[in-house]
Amino acid sequence: MTDSEIQSAILDMGRRARTASYALVKLTTEQKNAILIAMADEIMARQEVILTANALDLTRAEQNGLSTAMIDRLKLDRKRSKAISEAVREVALLPDPVGEKLTDWTRPNGLHIRKIRVPIGVIGIIFESRPNVTSDAASLCFKTGNATILRGGSEAIDSNRALAAALQAGGERAGLPPDSIQLIPFTDRASVEHMAKMDQYIDLIIPRGGKGLIEKVVACARMPVIKHYDGVCHVYVHADADLQVAADIIVNSKCQKPGVCNALETFLVHQDIAVSFYPLIGKRLAEAKVEIHGDPTALEHLGVPAKAATEEDWTTEYLELILAAKTVSGLDEAIAHINRYGSHHTDSIITRDRSAAERFQHEIDSAVVLHNASTRFNDGGEFGFGAEIGISTDKLHARGPMGLAELCSYKYLVDGSGQIRV
Amino acid sequence: MTDSEIQSAILDMGRRARTASYALVKLTTEQKNAILIAMADEIMARQEVILTANALDLTRAEQNGLSTAMIDRLKLDRKRSKAISEAVREVALLPDPVGEKLTDWTRPNGLHIRKIRVPIGVIGIIFESRPNVTSDAASLCFKTGNATILRGGSEAIDSNRALAAALQAGGERAGLPPDSIQLIPFTDRASVEHMAKMDQYIDLIIPRGGKGLIEKVVACARMPVIKHYDGVCHVYVHADADLQVAADIIVNSKCQKPGVCNALETFLVHQDIAVSFYPLIGKRLAEAKVEIHGDPTALEHLGVPAKAATEEDWTTEYLELILAAKTVSGLDEAIAHINRYGSHHTDSIITRDRSAAERFQHEIDSAVVLHNASTRFNDGGEFGFGAEIGISTDKLHARGPMGLAELCSYKYLVDGSGQIRV
Repeated sequence: MTDSEIQSAILDMGRRARTASYALVKLTTEQKNAILIAMADEIMARQEVILTANALDLTRAEQNGLSTAMIDRLKLDRKRSKAISEAVREVALLPDPVGEKLTDWTRPNGLHIRKIRVPIGVIGIIFESRPNVTSDAASLCFKTGNATILRGGSEAIDSNRALAAALQAGGERAGLPPDSIQLIPFTDRASVEHMAKMDQYIDLIIPRGGKGLIEKVVACARMPVIKHYDGVCHVYVHADADLQVAADIIVNSKCQKPGVCNALETFLVHQDIAVSFYPLIGKRLAEAKVEIHGDPTALEHLGVPAKAATEEDWTTEYLELILAAKTVSGLDEAIAHINRYGSHHTDSIITRDRSAAERFQHEIDSAVVLHNASTRFNDGGEFGFGAEIGISTDKLHARGPMGLAELCSYKYLVDGSGQIRV
Repeated sequence: MTDSEIQSAILDMGRRARTASYALVKLTTEQKNAILIAMADEIMARQEVILTANALDLTRAEQNGLSTAMIDRLKLDRKRSKAISEAVREVALLPDPVGEKLTDWTRPNGLHIRKIRVPIGVIGIIFESRPNVTSDAASLCFKTGNATILRGGSEAIDSNRALAAALQAGGERAGLPPDSIQLIPFTDRASVEHMAKMDQYIDLIIPRGGKGLIEKVVACARMPVIKHYDGVCHVYVHADADLQVAADIIVNSKCQKPGVCNALETFLVHQDIAVSFYPLIGKRLAEAKVEIHGDPTALEHLGVPAKAATEEDWTTEYLELILAAKTVSGLDEAIAHINRYGSHHTDSIITRDRSAAERFQHEIDSAVVLHNASTRFNDGGEFGFGAEIGISTDKLHARGPMGLAELCSYKYLVDGSGQIRV
């Protein structure tokens, strides 16, 4: 396809998505839930078709020499495709945030103002290898009354096409407005840029993938982009901390799932407890096979083999069993370190001192700031949101776990009786 | 200055603004209000200095042949500079949204989660001729605990410098952290682009000015931009409307202040009342010296001279005493017209039928949708926000009147007793 053919195809999809978004606003919660269930059913009905399509992607992946990890992310089987269907079915069970009254008040002139949650409109999702993003993102965006334009990676194009076709066919049988869920059917790289420039039709882009993908979208997007960047997360152990609690939380934050954004990357220790805490945590981390990169005080007291930390360690998201350790003179230095080197994602203080915890929570500039709890709790499911589309590292619109409510905008409805402005 | 000198100066301002933002978080509401009052006092104390600086801008403006309207926007006198000081003083009187608990809940595992309003961090303001934006924007951003980087137009540089110096000197005497309010002291055009790319230090850019300025910022910004685009606003007169109320609201929406974004640009009339309503509104608009561009039915019944409307009229923001008129077959066509041709800003329905009003408010995709009230009420002051930094045409973060609450982000504070994730 030529660049102008791609652009005109993308523009046409945008125009149709905008039209669909107006039809979506008219659906009731019950209609939306019935459509979601029909989509889930259709994924099960087409399980063979979806797995056959996935096999094409897998064959191409092997021919192209993709890594084992990437092939695993790409691969669907009966269990995974059933899980994809179940995830769509679960979205039907979640409460619908659309239409919720956020606040209302009456002005002295009698005007009654209501602030109401409404769909955003059209959401673009640009994602990489995992085919389940097709149905996860589309079902969450649909539940909130948004039209979706999906642009998946070329490596998963056959799986994505099969899943999108199932969502569309199942959904439309139950009343899904046409063009509510559209997948860009070709894999030309230029489509990302054309999507990102089309702010007349796309209200928000959410890139789901690595830093390179997010950077690319940010660099050319004209509409808002909600970003899910790195988590360089911290636990700070204050002088009065319960050391067993601190050790449990550090081990859990690092080891429970090391490859995710809310996993721990650096822990900070108050200098007054360096002698007592480092040997304790050193032993626990050694048992958990965690490699430690420590400052000189840490290295002196850990009591287990460790590497010397460099400046680079303070900003590194290891995403594996490596953890940086630093000694600080107290709360001020801990806060300054975290605000300077962290990624404003998730940070936790371990202390028995309520006022120290409050200062930490107040002054740390991060989406989620915990007290005596694991960093792993920065998560839509753990927050009780039911589902999340990601953990936003942005400060506008959505910060931290991004659930259904964050896939909504709002508008003001003003009721009068003939008021004019004087 | 070379481009790399400009870039390095801007980066240095960004770095210092970020540092200031951490100091700002520590100020209490009382401290912030005392600082605002000191700023207002200092503007009055430096009134002569500010007017002398403004005279330099005015001389240059005349030499450069600026229009009378632009020179009027630029001009300060004793009355206007006093109003600038008073506006800062009034910001001190507004309630402080920072720290407000938006919601809280407890999870089954005992974790207590609080969602708290916090400053955004560093806000960039890029604006054109009016020097009062310097103090208006800086005081609202400061009240909400944000550091500000201001970039004004070259035509007002001397006035802006004098005002920013007064804010800084007055503020710092009362405890304003250094670098909380910075004005880019040079006028090179490249500074806009360097600001817009500096997403490591600027969390949000708000362009205050014409469409060209906003477009330029949107095209190169890496961080969120809150836009204040055009208002192509509508009043739809339903078949059962009180025709006197409809006429009063149309005249007020168009004429009370024609040059602003919430002024009316097109009114739609239900075909069943074309014969009765057009003559009435035609007379009223003629008395108000409004030029009408109407569709054939409007032209037939208005009873006053009018021009034939073209397709272009439906999308035009006249910002003067011109108004488009169109006849529609009913609610469906009115909604479809407004969603297609409008700018999703402000629209009003005049009807006695509550269910028609509800459908209109539900299906119109605009920031503020009114029932039996003038479009001119889409305004921070009229909403009771006390002050506004503008009327957002965005759907994310802030939509419609943007007051102090919309200059804030939020974060989650999570309190536990040793919880780890299993």
